[in-house]
Amino acid sequence: MRPVCVIGLGLIGGSVLRAARAAGRSVWGATASEQDAEAAVADGFAVADTVDDALVRAAGEDAIVVLAVPLPATETVLYKIAERAPHCLLTDVVSVKAPVLALVRRILPHVHYAGGHPMAGVAASGWIAGSATLFERAAWVVTAEPDTELGTWREVARLALDCGAQVVPTTAAEHDAAVAVVSHLPHVLAAVLAATGAEAGPLALSLAAGSFGDGTRVAGTRAELVLAMCEGNREQLLGALDDALGKLGVARGALASTGSLRATVRGGNLGRAELVRHKRGQRVRTKVDLAGPRALEELCLLGRRGGRIIGLDGDLALAELPEDDAR
Amino acid sequence: MRPVCVIGLGLIGGSVLRAARAAGRSVWGATASEQDAEAAVADGFAVADTVDDALVRAAGEDAIVVLAVPLPATETVLYKIAERAPHCLLTDVVSVKAPVLALVRRILPHVHYAGGHPMAGVAASGWIAGSATLFERAAWVVTAEPDTELGTWREVARLALDCGAQVVPTTAAEHDAAVAVVSHLPHVLAAVLAATGAEAGPLALSLAAGSFGDGTRVAGTRAELVLAMCEGNREQLLGALDDALGKLGVARGALASTGSLRATVRGGNLGRAELVRHKRGQRVRTKVDLAGPRALEELCLLGRRGGRIIGLDGDLALAELPEDDAR
Repeated sequence: MRPVCVIGLGLIGGSVLRAARAAGRSVWGATASEQDAEAAVADGFAVADTVDDALVRAAGEDAIVVLAVPLPATETVLYKIAERAPHCLLTDVVSVKAPVLALVRRILPHVHYAGGHPMAGVAASGWIAGSATLFERAAWVVTAEPDTELGTWREVARLALDCGAQVVPTTAAEHDAAVAVVSHLPHVLAAVLAATGAEAGPLALSLAAGSFGDGTRVAGTRAELVLAMCEGNREQLLGALDDALGKLGVARGALASTGSLRATVRGGNLGRAELVRHKRGQRVRTKVDLAGPRALEELCLLGRRGGRIIGLDGDLALAELPEDDAR
Repeated sequence: MRPVCVIGLGLIGGSVLRAARAAGRSVWGATASEQDAEAAVADGFAVADTVDDALVRAAGEDAIVVLAVPLPATETVLYKIAERAPHCLLTDVVSVKAPVLALVRRILPHVHYAGGHPMAGVAASGWIAGSATLFERAAWVVTAEPDTELGTWREVARLALDCGAQVVPTTAAEHDAAVAVVSHLPHVLAAVLAATGAEAGPLALSLAAGSFGDGTRVAGTRAELVLAMCEGNREQLLGALDDALGKLGVARGALASTGSLRATVRGGNLGRAELVRHKRGQRVRTKVDLAGPRALEELCLLGRRGGRIIGLDGDLALAELPEDDAR
């Protein structure tokens, strides 16, 4: 099994390091955070003194390099990789994919790269918040562009599976559009609701119960994390915000003119039922032949239909699809 | 202790019947739902054959009448009360207060009335979903208008306390403005988010995690309940929707023009912190002298500051205020 070098040892990077070791891989890391470095060493992990040292070792042992720093720090680290380990397999775990892909193409045009995004919690942070089981059954996006090397994609998918995750294949653009709606938009709506509620004063907070508590929960997330996600996905989030503004305007208009919110509430009922069916409904098994001539397209089609890869068996990717979408 | 006659034996009415009996009161009810009536009788409660029968008994025993039917059904029941029990104390548990107050003033201008709204869950419904402990430590609004009789207000507050709730005194208008923001707006935002997510397709639902799940939870509530709440509070909800549309538009504009969501996310952080402080922070004891000349104003001021009445001791209302608001 290929060794794993993780740059950045926060919640996600630190959990990759632990999970990859638990899967039997040789692992080491590096981080600019003294606190994370000390905590990782105290937990018995190898942490290089500098990012350069970690990358030199990665080049020597032909490791897969996992870029696990916040988006604003990726450019600097990519230049170090270009200098120290340009031939290593490369992936990342940053929460937006098109901006990282653009940086990789500019700085390391010939690198063997497939982007990644494990969909794991963001409320806590730092090495101490991580664990070897953080990715258990979670979705882990591995991006497949038309020019992605299938061999690289498989190595990154194998790492994600080793970490206990289920692999969602998709393009960077489709990923960013999807998370704009299901991750970044919810954070903006929660912020708007929380601010509106607090402005309404103590009586309103006194009467606030389940719906307000649920609707504002992620407004408590650390601002830096939310801003990095949302601002890094600006174009796609603008589209999602326009969708939401449009629907909210329609609701406002209907209530003002006809007094009815039926279409809005019915749309919400149907949407929520769709989510529940997707998450709890039956799933059917399927396969993708990775040796086939259109493997990348088939992988992306699987992802688009809500499918996840749960194992690799030779040239076959073993997958599951929601029953509704499998027909 | 004054007997209690509950008209409507769904989740809330059925729970009032149980909780009032558990507090040692004589109780009976009536309902248009055969299913709820049978279930209540099976649980050992007295259910009159008709609403009229229940009201005749209420008049005979000088009971307090609790109107626990959906808003669209209140008018019909108020006419029955005007005919059968016009001198009884009257309260209601409908989730909007100004429309009920207007109906009461028109149909029963001389009745002894104070409106109520226990803030208890709405996801399930019917007698079988209720319990004697549903209101334990929950907020129960009891409205105090300038012309409310203090004696009536005290009787209704006593019933709410007997049911295990904490009493929030406020006017119908202030109540409706507050719940528009902390209850009705969250339902509309959840519906908008759920619909936007479902339209984004299976890939988006596959990547949906905590933030989308939390933000859409109440979109699964039965449409009739949501529509009755929201449409019944049209004017106030329009104001809350305009607030939210304004804040969402500001977020959209800032992201498009400067690329920054800092003000929005910071506002959300502060709002959520305010909620958490309100719900989990220290509370200080205070009192309202119900025999004082400005008792109604003092009660409403207490409610406006986030306070709740937790007991009645002679002419004193024993209350708690959030520490921040008590200064």
